[in-house]
Amino acid sequence: MPDRPTTPLLDIVDTPQDLRRLKPEQLPQLAAELREEVISAVSVTGGHLGAGLGVVELTVALHYVFDTPRDTLIWDVGHQAYPHKILTGRRSRIRTLRQGGGLSGFTRRAESEYDPFGAAHSSTSISAALGFAVANRLAGEPGKAIAVIGDGAMSAGMAYEAMNNAQAAGNRLVVILNDNDMSIAPPVGALSAYLARLISSGPFISVRETLKKLARRMPRPLHQAARKADEFARGMATGGTLFEELGFYYVGPVDGHNLEQLLPVLENVRDEAHGPILVHVVTKKGKGYAPAEAAADKYHGVQKFDVVSGVQAKAPPGPPSYTAVFADALVGEAKRDPKICAITAAMPSGTGLDKFEKAFPDRCFDVGIAEQHAVTFAAGLAAQGFRPFCAIYSTFLQRAYDQVVHDVAIQNLPVRFALDRAGLVGADGATHAGSFDITYLASLPNFVVMAAADEAELTHMVHTAALHDAGPIALRYPRGNGTGVAIPAVPERLEIGRGRIVREGKKVAILSLGTRLEEARKAADQLDALGLSTTVADLRFAKPLDEALIRRLLTSHEVAVTIEEGSIGGLGAHVLTMASDQGLIDAGLKLRTLRLPDIFQDQDKPERQYAEAGLDADAIVKTVLSALRRNSVGVVGGARA
Amino acid sequence: MPDRPTTPLLDIVDTPQDLRRLKPEQLPQLAAELREEVISAVSVTGGHLGAGLGVVELTVALHYVFDTPRDTLIWDVGHQAYPHKILTGRRSRIRTLRQGGGLSGFTRRAESEYDPFGAAHSSTSISAALGFAVANRLAGEPGKAIAVIGDGAMSAGMAYEAMNNAQAAGNRLVVILNDNDMSIAPPVGALSAYLARLISSGPFISVRETLKKLARRMPRPLHQAARKADEFARGMATGGTLFEELGFYYVGPVDGHNLEQLLPVLENVRDEAHGPILVHVVTKKGKGYAPAEAAADKYHGVQKFDVVSGVQAKAPPGPPSYTAVFADALVGEAKRDPKICAITAAMPSGTGLDKFEKAFPDRCFDVGIAEQHAVTFAAGLAAQGFRPFCAIYSTFLQRAYDQVVHDVAIQNLPVRFALDRAGLVGADGATHAGSFDITYLASLPNFVVMAAADEAELTHMVHTAALHDAGPIALRYPRGNGTGVAIPAVPERLEIGRGRIVREGKKVAILSLGTRLEEARKAADQLDALGLSTTVADLRFAKPLDEALIRRLLTSHEVAVTIEEGSIGGLGAHVLTMASDQGLIDAGLKLRTLRLPDIFQDQDKPERQYAEAGLDADAIVKTVLSALRRNSVGVVGGARA
Repeated sequence: MPDRPTTPLLDIVDTPQDLRRLKPEQLPQLAAELREEVISAVSVTGGHLGAGLGVVELTVALHYVFDTPRDTLIWDVGHQAYPHKILTGRRSRIRTLRQGGGLSGFTRRAESEYDPFGAAHSSTSISAALGFAVANRLAGEPGKAIAVIGDGAMSAGMAYEAMNNAQAAGNRLVVILNDNDMSIAPPVGALSAYLARLISSGPFISVRETLKKLARRMPRPLHQAARKADEFARGMATGGTLFEELGFYYVGPVDGHNLEQLLPVLENVRDEAHGPILVHVVTKKGKGYAPAEAAADKYHGVQKFDVVSGVQAKAPPGPPSYTAVFADALVGEAKRDPKICAITAAMPSGTGLDKFEKAFPDRCFDVGIAEQHAVTFAAGLAAQGFRPFCAIYSTFLQRAYDQVVHDVAIQNLPVRFALDRAGLVGADGATHAGSFDITYLASLPNFVVMAAADEAELTHMVHTAALHDAGPIALRYPRGNGTGVAIPAVPERLEIGRGRIVREGKKVAILSLGTRLEEARKAADQLDALGLSTTVADLRFAKPLDEALIRRLLTSHEVAVTIEEGSIGGLGAHVLTMASDQGLIDAGLKLRTLRLPDIFQDQDKPERQYAEAGLDADAIVKTVLSALRRNSVGVVGGARA
Repeated sequence: MPDRPTTPLLDIVDTPQDLRRLKPEQLPQLAAELREEVISAVSVTGGHLGAGLGVVELTVALHYVFDTPRDTLIWDVGHQAYPHKILTGRRSRIRTLRQGGGLSGFTRRAESEYDPFGAAHSSTSISAALGFAVANRLAGEPGKAIAVIGDGAMSAGMAYEAMNNAQAAGNRLVVILNDNDMSIAPPVGALSAYLARLISSGPFISVRETLKKLARRMPRPLHQAARKADEFARGMATGGTLFEELGFYYVGPVDGHNLEQLLPVLENVRDEAHGPILVHVVTKKGKGYAPAEAAADKYHGVQKFDVVSGVQAKAPPGPPSYTAVFADALVGEAKRDPKICAITAAMPSGTGLDKFEKAFPDRCFDVGIAEQHAVTFAAGLAAQGFRPFCAIYSTFLQRAYDQVVHDVAIQNLPVRFALDRAGLVGADGATHAGSFDITYLASLPNFVVMAAADEAELTHMVHTAALHDAGPIALRYPRGNGTGVAIPAVPERLEIGRGRIVREGKKVAILSLGTRLEEARKAADQLDALGLSTTVADLRFAKPLDEALIRRLLTSHEVAVTIEEGSIGGLGAHVLTMASDQGLIDAGLKLRTLRLPDIFQDQDKPERQYAEAGLDADAIVKTVLSALRRNSVGVVGGARA
C-alpha cells in the first residue's frame, strides 16, 4: 500500500462546517491536500480520477461559500464528487469507493445529507436542482440549489429542457457550467464549439469586472427597455448570449483553479442574484496530477495505479472484452457493406466505436450525450437505406425509449441496437446496470432481441444484425471479458428466432439467454453428477422465441429453468406466456424462471452480484432440486407433447 | 353531409408535380381552395384542424419550391399535415381521416412516398431529417431534408440535441420553425419568450432584405475572422443569435401566410445554402376560419362541426371522462394537503390540470414539451418533501423512461405518476396507444403500479397515491368516459397490493386489471349462463401483486384468465411468474393471459380495437371455453391448495 499523503489541514476538516472555520488564505493549501488525498485514494481503489481532480478548488469554494446542506449542491453525473465526499464526512471510507459494501462511485442520497440527489447518468442536475429550488420557494425556505454540470452533459436535451424552465426557480438556482472541454471523450456539436468561442474570445474575467457586473444588476422589476439594453450589452460583452436568451444571467468565464477568483464570484452569485445564474467555470480535467494531465483521456476512469509513476495496474492477460469483439466484428461488416454506419452518444471508446471511426470516419457519428437524437437520427438513416448500428449501453438506451418505440419499432425501421453493459456491471452499481432492456424491448412489436452467450456468438449476431433489413434488431452483451472461445474468421448468419442445443440430457432443461450459459453448463455438470441428466440450450433470441425448441424442451424434461441477466418481464415471462398460450401448463409443468431480483443491487464484484441475484450455477441447481422436491409425482416427459 | 366547396384549381392538382405546373400567381387561389377543402373534410371527420389551417400557404410553398419526394419533407408531430395529404395524392381519401381503415391523422410511411418519416409524438423531425440529409450526403444524392417544427415542439430536448448536431448535414438541412405561439396549449419557458422577443423586435423581413442577406453569404471555407464578424453582425441584425450559436443560418421572421414572401425566401434557401438553415416562419393557428381563429384553443382538435357556424357536434351526454375525474380528485387532495403539486408537459387541458392550475396556480407547473425534465423536476420536489403528481399520457412517459428509472425508482422517491390514455386510444392510433407502461414500470423495483377499473376506483387511487410517501407510484386510466358509477364523496385509501373480489363464483376466475372489468363482468354473465360459475376480481395492482388473492383464485378455480389493457410482460406475465415461482403450475394450472397483441394496431373505434385485440367479453369466454376443452381431465379446485 502506498504511503498516505501528509494532510495537516485536511485532517481537521471533516465537514463543511469545519471548512468554513478556515480563513480564505488557507484554502489553497486545503485544496492541495485534498487533491493529494483523492489521488492517493483512487490509486488504491481505481475509479474516476480526472474529473474529480478538475473540481478540487471548485468543491472547496462551493462548500465554503454556500451553506450546504441547507443549500442543495447537486453534482451532475457524480463521478467527480470524490473530493466532495472527502469534505462531507466520508473521508474515513474513501478507500472503499466502488467496492462491495463501500462508498458509491457516484453521489447517493443514502450516503449523506450532503448528497441531496443521486446521480450517475448525465445531465439530470439542473432539473433536480430546479425541483429543490422551487420546493424551497413554495415552502418559504431560504435554501438555494446549485447544479454543477459539465460541458459535455450540456449537450443532452434534458439539460436544455431544464434551462428552458429555470425561471421557475427565481433567484434560488445557480448553475455552474464546469467547462473542461472533455466529458469522457472530447465533446462534439455546436454547443461545444460555442463554448470554445466564448473562452477564446477573451481572458478570464477579473474579480473587479465580476463585482462591477454583478453590482450593476438591478433588482426586478426592471424597466423593460433598460433591461433589454442591459441584456444586450451583457450578451455582447460576455458572449454568453445563448444562456442569456434562455433566461440566465451569465457570468464568466472564470478560472476554476484560482480560488482568489472563484470565492468572490461565488459570494456575489450567492448574494446578488435576482434570477437564475449560470457561472461558466473553466477547469482542467486531471489538474494537478502530471500523469493525468498528460494522458489523452485525462485518467477519466482508472485501474489501481502507482502514485509516483502514474502507471496503472494491468488487467491480467485474458480474452478480449465483449466491447472489443463487437467493434472488430462491426468493422468487418462495414468492410463488406458500405451502407453500414455507426452511431455513439459520446462513448466512442466505451462502445469500441473509436476503432470503427478510425477505419470509417465518414460513417461514424458521435452525437454527444444525446441518446434520443442518436436513435431517431439512426431511424432517418435507415429510412433512407443505410444500415445504422446504434451502440449504446443498455442503461443509457432508457434515455431513448420513446424514440425506440415511436420512431423505430412502429415504423419497423431496421435500426441495429448494440447494447453493451447489459446485465450487472460491478463497480458502477445499480445506476449503470443494464437490467431492463430485454423487458422493455421484447414487449415491442416488430423487434428482434438477441443476447450473445460468448464472443463467437456475438460475432455471429453482429453479422446477423447487419443482414437483417426486415425491422429493428437488438443484440446485448455484458461488460467485461469474453470466455476465451475462438472467434470465427467467417461469421455465421443466425436464423432469426432459432436457438441451439449446447448439450443434450433427459431430465432437466436449462434454457439460457446470454452469458449465463457458462453457469448453466456448470450447473448441468453438477446435476449430471446427481443423476439428473441435463440439457442446456442457448436460446439466443428473447424475441421471437424459438417456440418449437422451447416446446420440445418443456414437454420432454421433468424440470425446466430459464436464466437471463435481466429483470422480470423478459425471457422467463415470455417463455411462461408461450407455455400458457399453448396450454403447456395445463397438465402440470415444472418451469422456473431465474432473473434479476426485484431490488436495485449495489456495486460489488460481478460474480458476487450474480450470486446475490441467484443467477449462478449453485442457484440453478438449487432451483432444480427444489422444484423436484416440491411435488414428488414426477411428470413423465413426452406424455404431454 | 355539408356541400363540398368549389375548388376548380385544386381539382387539377393531385400531386406536387401538378402543383409545380401552376404559375406563382395562381398559388394564393390554390391555397384558398385547399383551406376550404381542409375545413370541409375535418367538419365531417373531426380531428386536428387549427394546426393544418395555419400551414396551408407553407404547405403549398414547400411543395412548390422543393422537389418532393426527392427532397424529404418531414412534418413534426404530423397533425398539421392534412393539407399536405390533400396535395400528395390522398385527397380522395381525406374524408376517411382517423377512421378505421382510413388515412392516419398523422404522417405515415406506409401511406405515401411523400411521408418519408412518420410522426405523432413531437420534436422528432430535426433528428430524422438529419438522418436523411446525412444519408444523401454519404450516398452522393442531391436531396435535401426539410423539417417543419412548431415553436412548442422546440422546447423538447430532443430538438435541441438534433440542432446541436446539425452541422453533420452540411447544406442539406432546412429547419422551418413554424412559430404560431401555440402548441396545444400556449408554450412556456425561456425559448418561447425568446421567440416572442424576436418577433416583436421588428417587422417581418422584406423579400429584398432576405435576398440581400442570403446573397451576402459566402461559401465555405470562410476566413475565420471574417466569418466571426459576419456571424456577429447577423446575430445582431436578425436577433436569431440563439440559433446562430447552434450553428444555423437564421432567416426570419417571415410571414407564413404571405406567398409572395414565402416563395422567394424558400427559393433562396434552397439554392444558396452553405450549411444548415433555420427559417423562422410566423403563422396563425386556425388561420382563415373565423370560428377557429376566435377560439382559445384555435380548434386544435375538434369533433365534427357545422362549417358555417363552427359549432361542433356535442358528445352525447354521459359519464365524465377519466381525465375530469382525475383532475377533480387531485384538486380535492390538494385542498387537504399543501404539499401536493402537479406537473404537466404541455398538456394542461389534456390531463385536466388546467382545473388544478386555476385552483392552485403556485403548485401547478407546465414545463412545456419536456417530459424528461418534468420527471426529474418532480423527483427534486419529492426529495425536498413535496408530493408531486406528474400527469403524463402513458405513451409520452416513454420519453422520460430513464428519468423514471434513474431519478425516481433507484432513489425510491415518492413521485406520483398519473398515466392518462393508458391502453388503446381510438382515432389517434398506434403512436398514441398506451400499451407498454405496465410492462416498463412493473419491472422496476420500488414501484407501485395501479390501474383504475372505473371512476370511483380512480378517485380512490388518486387518494392512495397522495398518501403514499414510501416510494414511486403510478396510476393508469384510459382515454374516454367513465362507466357512470357514483363518485365517492370521501375517497378511500386502498391497501397497497390488495385487490378485490367483484363477484364470487366457483369454476372460472377472471383476474382483471383496469377498465376491462366491465367486459369481465359481461363475460362472467355469459359463462354463468353456460353453467360455468365465474369469479371476477379487480386486482387493482399490477405491482405489488395481491399474491394471497391470486393464489387462492388460481388454486380454487378450474380456469383462470388475466386481462389487461397492456402488452406482454405486464400483469399476465407477473401472475404467471408468481405462479411459477410458487410452484403453482407444477401440477397443472389452466391459466391464460389476455393482453394486447404483438402488433401495432391502427386507428379505429376503441371497441373495435379491443375486439381486434381479443380483449372483450367474447374473447374472454372463448379463451375460457378453449382452455376447458383443451384438456378434458378437469383439475379439481382445492386439490392443489
